[in-house]
This record gives sequence, structure tokens and C-alpha cells, in this order.
Amino acid sequence: MSRTISVRESIYSENDTLAAAIHASLAKKNIFTVNVLGGAGAGKTSTLINVIQGLGDVKTWVVEGDIESDIDTRTFLSLGVEAVQINTGGDCHLNASMMQTILPLLDLRKPGILFIENIGNLVCPAEFVIGENIKLLVCSVPEGSDKPWKYPLAFKRAAAVILNKTDLLPYVKFDRDFFDKGVRAQNPDAPIFAVSSSSGAGFPSLVSWLQAAAAERLAVDLAP
Amino acid sequence: MSRTISVRESIYSENDTLAAAIHASLAKKNIFTVNVLGGAGAGKTSTLINVIQGLGDVKTWVVEGDIESDIDTRTFLSLGVEAVQINTGGDCHLNASMMQTILPLLDLRKPGILFIENIGNLVCPAEFVIGENIKLLVCSVPEGSDKPWKYPLAFKRAAAVILNKTDLLPYVKFDRDFFDKGVRAQNPDAPIFAVSSSSGAGFPSLVSWLQAAAAERLAVDLAP
Repeated sequence: MSRTISVRESIYSENDTLAAAIHASLAKKNIFTVNVLGGAGAGKTSTLINVIQGLGDVKTWVVEGDIESDIDTRTFLSLGVEAVQINTGGDCHLNASMMQTILPLLDLRKPGILFIENIGNLVCPAEFVIGENIKLLVCSVPEGSDKPWKYPLAFKRAAAVILNKTDLLPYVKFDRDFFDKGVRAQNPDAPIFAVSSSSGAGFPSLVSWLQAAAAERLAVDLAP
Repeated sequence: MSRTISVRESIYSENDTLAAAIHASLAKKNIFTVNVLGGAGAGKTSTLINVIQGLGDVKTWVVEGDIESDIDTRTFLSLGVEAVQINTGGDCHLNASMMQTILPLLDLRKPGILFIENIGNLVCPAEFVIGENIKLLVCSVPEGSDKPWKYPLAFKRAAAVILNKTDLLPYVKFDRDFFDKGVRAQNPDAPIFAVSSSSGAGFPSLVSWLQAAAAERLAVDLAP
């Protein structure tokens, strides 16, 4: 067992070093990088579409992570968003090495916001940094209000929590108070944005927050 | 990297050996074992409650897997179902060693059906056997119809696919034909049961299928 653990530690440490280099290189280009986490079917793609549309003239890119398929990349491309696909072939999360391989395929010469849509999985992606400024967590109403209690790390690591599919609140049991308490138990500071990707409700506040976060964190990154 | 791979292979092989022993021991007791997979919030617990109630006098047990919390175990216990909790503390799937540790806590002296609710994750739990006769996959309508294309292994390994939360079909976009084609692309044989855990619709067919599967597979297990 100790051999397994030492290999794992070395994987984390190699990944962290590479992620720090990727992050530094993106920040130098004035690019704010957002690692988007969420379970399968929480609505990460539909959330990103709303956010990107809300950002208007801000230049955006998407790195799309999936085990297989390029369904979401084709959706982004059809909307005019520059997007590239990582297929992990089985791996349950993206890592810094995959990011290093894929980033040269994007034209990153302007300042802007790079979104990385991680594998749909509330567990493993939370363990890894892949060059991002922040992690954004997308949950959804039909998943149920107990998720922060069951999947604590993703909530701990999130700079903001997005509660998607609020249009389904009339049709499912969801205890918003229990959910909010769960988020707070893991994370005292992250704002919670209740949104509906299908109606667009709630996105203006999220977009404003994201723009402020981008300005603030890039200022820190670029401070002499 | 080769060191990492050899450790992984050894983990799989040790796990498989232990899982086979657990499986043989359960089969000898005339216990049919079902490893229940599904993403976070697909409704694994509510599906199991409906199935267990549908099974009537059949003796059932639940091993409940979560990273943290015992919310679902308390639900099962409150309904009179014998249930025990595994908290992995971070691991994204159950393994045979965890099963070996927990099973002595259950009174397994009667024939019956043992359900193991795995960690909510459409990726990693599909890679491991933990002593089961079959894997059962729970998906849900609000997760979207593209899941079989994006998370192929869970669909490949499932003996049956349950499409839960069909009561939400009027309120979300879901292409049933695209979903069914995706399931068939991964798995030519698994039946698909459309159910609603909130209304109970669709469960009688699933329960009948499960009883037939249990009889058939235990006959194979117990053949001289």
C-alpha cells in the first residue's frame, strides 16, 4: 500500500507543478481561467452557453472534457464559440498534462476568459488543479438538496456554487435551506447563484460576479 | 508511468480475486447481489426504495456507499430495511475490500437480495467488481439523453438500465430515441426500464425482471 500512496503523491505533485506553469502562462496573456465542475447532467454546458452569451464582447474559449464524444464541442462551435475537445478515453477527470497538450490548438492571443468543462463527476475532478484561477461548481435542483453533504470536496474547492434548473423547483422535492446549510458547512464564502439555463433566469448576477472575479484575480496574478 | 500502470493492474487483480470470493460466499447463502450505479442525484436511493417495496416478502439488505454522510442509510433504516453505511472519505467508488469489512455487520442467514448503492459517479464505480451478480444502472431524465454517449462503460457493464424521473419528461428536453440508441450502441441486450420514483410508475416490470434475473443467476451460481 505504501508504494501506491507514494505513486499517488508523485502524480499530484507533478500535476501541480505543470498546472502552476500553465496558470502563469495564461495569466501573463491576461486570460482568466475557470475550471467548471459538476455531476453528469447537472447542466455545465447549458450554464456555460448562458454565461458566454451574458459576457457579450468578452473573448471566450472552451476546453471541453469528456470520456468519449464531442457533442458539447459541436454545440459550442455551432454558436460561434472557439472550442476544443479532450477525450480522456476513460479517465474520470482532466489533468494538467491534458491541458498542456490541448492549449496550443486555441488562438490565445487576446485577453479573455477560458472555460474548461471538466468530466461530469462530482468527485475526482475536485482533487486536481489544471491551470485555473477558480473552480466553478454547477449543481442542479433535480439532483437533490443533499449533495453538499455527500460530495464535500467539490463544494469546498468551489469559488462559487451554481444551482441550475431552478425552473424544475415546482415539480421536485428540494429543500433550499438544507442545500444552503450544506454549502456553508463546506464553504463559508462561496456565493450561491440560483439559475435556470432554460429560461436564463439568474445569469446576470452570475456574469457580473464572474467579471469582477476575473478583474480582481488577474490583478493579483499580474502584480509586479 | 509504467510503475503507475503496474500498481493499477495489481489493484484491479487483487480486487477481482477478493470480489470473486465475496461473490461465491454470498451465492452459497442463496443471496443475489446487485451493484447499483448512477451519477450523483440520479435517484439510486429512491429507486431502491420502490424496488424493495415491490419485492414484498423477499428479504433485502442495503450496503450504502457515500463519501461522507449517512443520510440514505437512515432513510432505509426508517423504512425497516436492514442497511449499513460505507463512508469512503474521498474514494470515488466502492471496492471489494470495503465490502469484506462491512458484510459481517449484516445478518445474512436467509436467502434474499443484497443491494449495494455505490458512490454517485457515472465513471469510476463501473470499473470495479465488488462481489455482485449484476450491475444495475440508474439514470434520470433531467440528466439528459446524451449520457450513454458520454459515459460508455457504465452502460456497457449494466445488466439493466433504469431511466428514472420520467414524471419530469413534460418539463425538460429529453430525446428518448437518442437515449435508447446510445444505450444500444454500448449494450445490445440490457433492458431499459422507464420509471418514476415519485409516482411509482414502471416499477412492477423492473421488479419482475429482477426476480427472474435473481432466480436464473443463482441457479447458475449454485449448479453443481
